Amino acid sequence: MSQFPFQTLASVRAALSDLPDPDAGALSGARDRNGQLTKPPGALGRLEDLAIWYAGWRGTAQPQITAPQVVIFAGNHGVAARGVSAFPADVTVQMVANFQAGGAAVNQLARSAGAAFSVVPLALDRPTLDFTTGPAMDEFELCAALSEGWQAVDRQSDLLVTGEMGIGNTTAAAAIATALFGGAPEDWTGRGTGLDDAALVAKTRVVAEGLAANADRLGDPLQVLQALGGREIAAMAGAILRARQLSIPVILDGFICCAAAAVLHKINPAALDHCVAGHMSAEAAHGRVLQALGKPALLDMGMRLGEGSGAVLALRILQAAVACHSGMATFAEAGVAAGDDPAP
Amino acid sequence: MSQFPFQTLASVRAALSDLPDPDAGALSGARDRNGQLTKPPGALGRLEDLAIWYAGWRGTAQPQITAPQVVIFAGNHGVAARGVSAFPADVTVQMVANFQAGGAAVNQLARSAGAAFSVVPLALDRPTLDFTTGPAMDEFELCAALSEGWQAVDRQSDLLVTGEMGIGNTTAAAAIATALFGGAPEDWTGRGTGLDDAALVAKTRVVAEGLAANADRLGDPLQVLQALGGREIAAMAGAILRARQLSIPVILDGFICCAAAAVLHKINPAALDHCVAGHMSAEAAHGRVLQALGKPALLDMGMRLGEGSGAVLALRILQAAVACHSGMATFAEAGVAAGDDPAP
Repeated sequence: MSQFPFQTLASVRAALSDLPDPDAGALSGARDRNGQLTKPPGALGRLEDLAIWYAGWRGTAQPQITAPQVVIFAGNHGVAARGVSAFPADVTVQMVANFQAGGAAVNQLARSAGAAFSVVPLALDRPTLDFTTGPAMDEFELCAALSEGWQAVDRQSDLLVTGEMGIGNTTAAAAIATALFGGAPEDWTGRGTGLDDAALVAKTRVVAEGLAANADRLGDPLQVLQALGGREIAAMAGAILRARQLSIPVILDGFICCAAAAVLHKINPAALDHCVAGHMSAEAAHGRVLQALGKPALLDMGMRLGEGSGAVLALRILQAAVACHSGMATFAEAGVAAGDDPAP
Repeated sequence: MSQFPFQTLASVRAALSDLPDPDAGALSGARDRNGQLTKPPGALGRLEDLAIWYAGWRGTAQPQITAPQVVIFAGNHGVAARGVSAFPADVTVQMVANFQAGGAAVNQLARSAGAAFSVVPLALDRPTLDFTTGPAMDEFELCAALSEGWQAVDRQSDLLVTGEMGIGNTTAAAAIATALFGGAPEDWTGRGTGLDDAALVAKTRVVAEGLAANADRLGDPLQVLQALGGREIAAMAGAILRARQLSIPVILDGFICCAAAAVLHKINPAALDHCVAGHMSAEAAHGRVLQALGKPALLDMGMRLGEGSGAVLALRILQAAVACHSGMATFAEAGVAAGDDPAP
């Protein structure tokens, strides 16, 4: 395991303290270009902001998206034995097979968006420990999962979506969010794949028990991740961090992905500047996490599937934004008269 | 002109009184299929509703979108001489050339969504009359424009987006919306391509003058369209009606497209059942029109460009919905255990 980039939590902290910024020249070049395109100023709304943001990270005023990557991490959770999901834990490994066979929702979404797709199962035969009895992972397990995420990012990619599969992982995400952002477990615990009222009460109690059992480890975001997270959650954090090191923009998915991202944000508030929020999930607390991260969602389709599905859907919006920005004619090229106030 | 399907407004009314419904068998087959796909019940949110709606209109429980069509109608408005736009009227013909050369936003959007694209200029050298002095069109002109829209729909298409270009046409749309839905001109008049406060006041006054000059023609929706509309607005209405006759689903674009659609809705409240609202435009009154039509928007990106741009962006969402619905494995096919409550 010596090839892992992270051997200790100190090495993760070091990586988070040295992050690249977007390219200032590309940003200003993209803004200039946007002002010359054959449309009234601002008429493409958020598509304009998206294209300029993407241009900055890719270091060119007229970028293309030619190699988007979707990677799904799968993990099993000891806390699933507490009955926190409507689905049995066996479903994690069954769904990994479904991903590999191309039958899941995210496969259809990635294929029709032209994205490369892979799934990384993380020690599915060894669930993390039940966090109501102590930390879910030890430091080595956490570093290994962060490293798996880091290594899964293709350095030739020009856009990353990280998704997840793991029965019980909205419970882990709720515990992480409560620990990071404060408030009560019921503020952050939702119905996941479809719990009824009684099951939601029981799930909220499990989250509270997990926080109590790990109370002395909640002062540091990485220790929160170790105590309450899961391997797929840690891997998403590692992948998002690696994408930043490579200046690859990221589209965040739903509640669980954003809980992973929030760990990075809590350590360095600039750590997610290369990320946009793909969608607002129907999982109730997702909107609160996005608010805490300061990231308005691109889409609101009432989705709550995970698998990166909402983010891959939003990839289509980003592709459209970049296609407009880089493919449209300027007023001068098209011989079109500009308006009274052709934009600042 | 004898090939035109509409010679009189009576023939338009007749077409609107005899509309096909979605296929009940395909609807129920699609609902059944949706309940068996490898995801928790309802986890794809609005994507599920979209796919089932599309299946119903296409008459198959497992549809594909293989031939989407985007058609842009362009018209010139006599009322543009009243200074209601930030852009000169010459821009209509210049933008038609830009569409034909592939340089506009909608070209990039249609291309990257794999949609066929065409633009239909409608007598651009003969603007409609200034509606503040009387009706914009006579009955023959209206029927010709409706017919042009009807004929522009390719019967081999499996999805239609109708867009528009016409300097001054948010003024026409505001007048139509006021006449159809009531309220004051200021409730329906917005900044269009980017008017300042003073210009907005002047535009609102022009709308009021148009309503006053045509007061005796506002009791009938088709006469509203004749008195206050423009050729591209009428053509969109004709195209939407033709799509219904062919059971081709439609994605509605912004304020002007929806004002055209509203004429049909006012004559027959079921006339837009084959339509979804692609996006919520930044033109303030668009949300009010969508509310009146009972159509929640799929996207809210702050766009206000017209050209069908918001609807073509939403086409990507519909494509994703249909790809998931028709491409995903069922629980049985994938060998995945269903949850506690595997959907009604």
